[in-house]
Amino acid sequence: MDGFAPLPEPPYYAVIFTSLRTDVDEGYAEMAYRMDRLASEQTGYIGIECARNQGGHSITVSYWESEKALQNWKQIAAHLLAQKLGRERWYEHYCLRVARVERAYSGPGGR
Amino acid sequence: MDGFAPLPEPPYYAVIFTSLRTDVDEGYAEMAYRMDRLASEQTGYIGIECARNQGGHSITVSYWESEKALQNWKQIAAHLLAQKLGRERWYEHYCLRVARVERAYSGPGGR
Repeated sequence: MDGFAPLPEPPYYAVIFTSLRTDVDEGYAEMAYRMDRLASEQTGYIGIECARNQGGHSITVSYWESEKALQNWKQIAAHLLAQKLGRERWYEHYCLRVARVERAYSGPGGR
Repeated sequence: MDGFAPLPEPPYYAVIFTSLRTDVDEGYAEMAYRMDRLASEQTGYIGIECARNQGGHSITVSYWESEKALQNWKQIAAHLLAQKLGRERWYEHYCLRVARVERAYSGPGGR
C-alpha cells in the first residue's frame, strides 16, 4: 500500500530519524528527493516511511536488510554531503536510532 | 527538547506504528489523548514521538525500557479496547514493528 514500506520476515534493521527543521529551506527539497532515490537504489534497501507535522517535526524510518547495508548507505559520498548540510543548515535538532526489527505485523485484517 | 523522546543508553525497545486513518473521526482524538497519557504512566515507558501528514499517514514511535514493559502495555484493558476500535473504525491500514534499539545519537552538536 502506498506510503507503507514492505514487511519482510524479521529480523531486519530500522533507522528511526526524528527531526525538527530550521526555517532554512534552501536546497532541502531537492536534496531530500535525491537522497530518497539514491537510498532506494542501494543493496539491502527495503523501504522508507515518512510523516511530517505542520510545525516542522518529522519522522523518517528507513528499513534495511542488514547492519552492513545501512552502514554502506551511511558512508556513500553523496549521502555524507547531505548529512553535513543537514547538520549545518536544515536541522535544528534530530535524533537517530538504529534498531533491529524483531517482529512485525499489519492490519486491519479484514479490509 | 519538545517533541523528542529521551535518549537513554541502549539497548531499549521501539514500537514503530505506521498508519493511514479512515475518514471516521468519531472518538479518535479523545482516545489518542487518553492512550498517550496512560502509556506515559506505565512502568518502563521512556517516551513517544509522533508525526502526521496532512493526507492522513502518520508515524508514532513509542520507546520502552524492556520487552516486558511493552508487552504489559499491549495487554492493558483500556489499551486493548483502543486497539479493537482502531482496527474497526479508525485505521484503513497500519503496520506495527517491534525493534530493539542498538545505538542512538542526536545532533547538531553545536546548537
